[in-house]
Amino acid sequence: MIDAPIDHIAIVVADLEATIALYTQTLGFTEVYREIVADQGVEAVGLRTGESIIELLRPLDEASAIAKFRGEAPTKLHHTAYRVTDIKAELANLKARGIRLIDEQPRRGAHGNTIAFLHPHSTGGVLIELCQPR
Amino acid sequence: MIDAPIDHIAIVVADLEATIALYTQTLGFTEVYREIVADQGVEAVGLRTGESIIELLRPLDEASAIAKFRGEAPTKLHHTAYRVTDIKAELANLKARGIRLIDEQPRRGAHGNTIAFLHPHSTGGVLIELCQPR
Repeated sequence: MIDAPIDHIAIVVADLEATIALYTQTLGFTEVYREIVADQGVEAVGLRTGESIIELLRPLDEASAIAKFRGEAPTKLHHTAYRVTDIKAELANLKARGIRLIDEQPRRGAHGNTIAFLHPHSTGGVLIELCQPR
Repeated sequence: MIDAPIDHIAIVVADLEATIALYTQTLGFTEVYREIVADQGVEAVGLRTGESIIELLRPLDEASAIAKFRGEAPTKLHHTAYRVTDIKAELANLKARGIRLIDEQPRRGAHGNTIAFLHPHSTGGVLIELCQPR
């Protein structure tokens, strides 16, 4: 995963509209995508600042694991995503180095990206996503 | 804060050496700085990937607020930092927009940066830092 830049940082939120307003109107970010990612059980909103994206995630089901992760906080940092050019090769390489994978095969993420998550048991507890843009 | 890129993402860690080894040896990051930031009560290690930095923070005092924030997790996402070119102007602008500031005046951060934190009560719970490189 040599020199893979941060693709996005994901924040799970309770009140999506209030958080979009905070980031766009107060902090100066630009909304670049908004979609339901049924596979992950979230509505995802991409907010650009510079070359970086903050991705807000609103759980579709308040009983889901991602909603429970947020707990009582109105918003909570959820994962870091790194941009790679060959996600299958990266996954094979990381697996060979002893990293446990949540996704053995890449799947479709938000914004047309192909994504895969590493298991936080292998990464000290912080959830890491690999993300290959379309 | 128009188009301010992500400067770094900070992760508070219990075992600094193990986490450095994970990010450098397994994930392919490069260590670029390591220093005690007495003001913040942490040892900070900057790990570069692409143009981005993941900054590991080891609390110097296990009874400190940042150590309590980590809790039982071996590592936990702590804050997002955005790179600005005029931190005093940005702070004045954000304050005028109703953002509560932890640091009314910028102070010295890791790696020679001038930094200031916004109060998480104003940002939905996620801690945000403004960061002006030297």
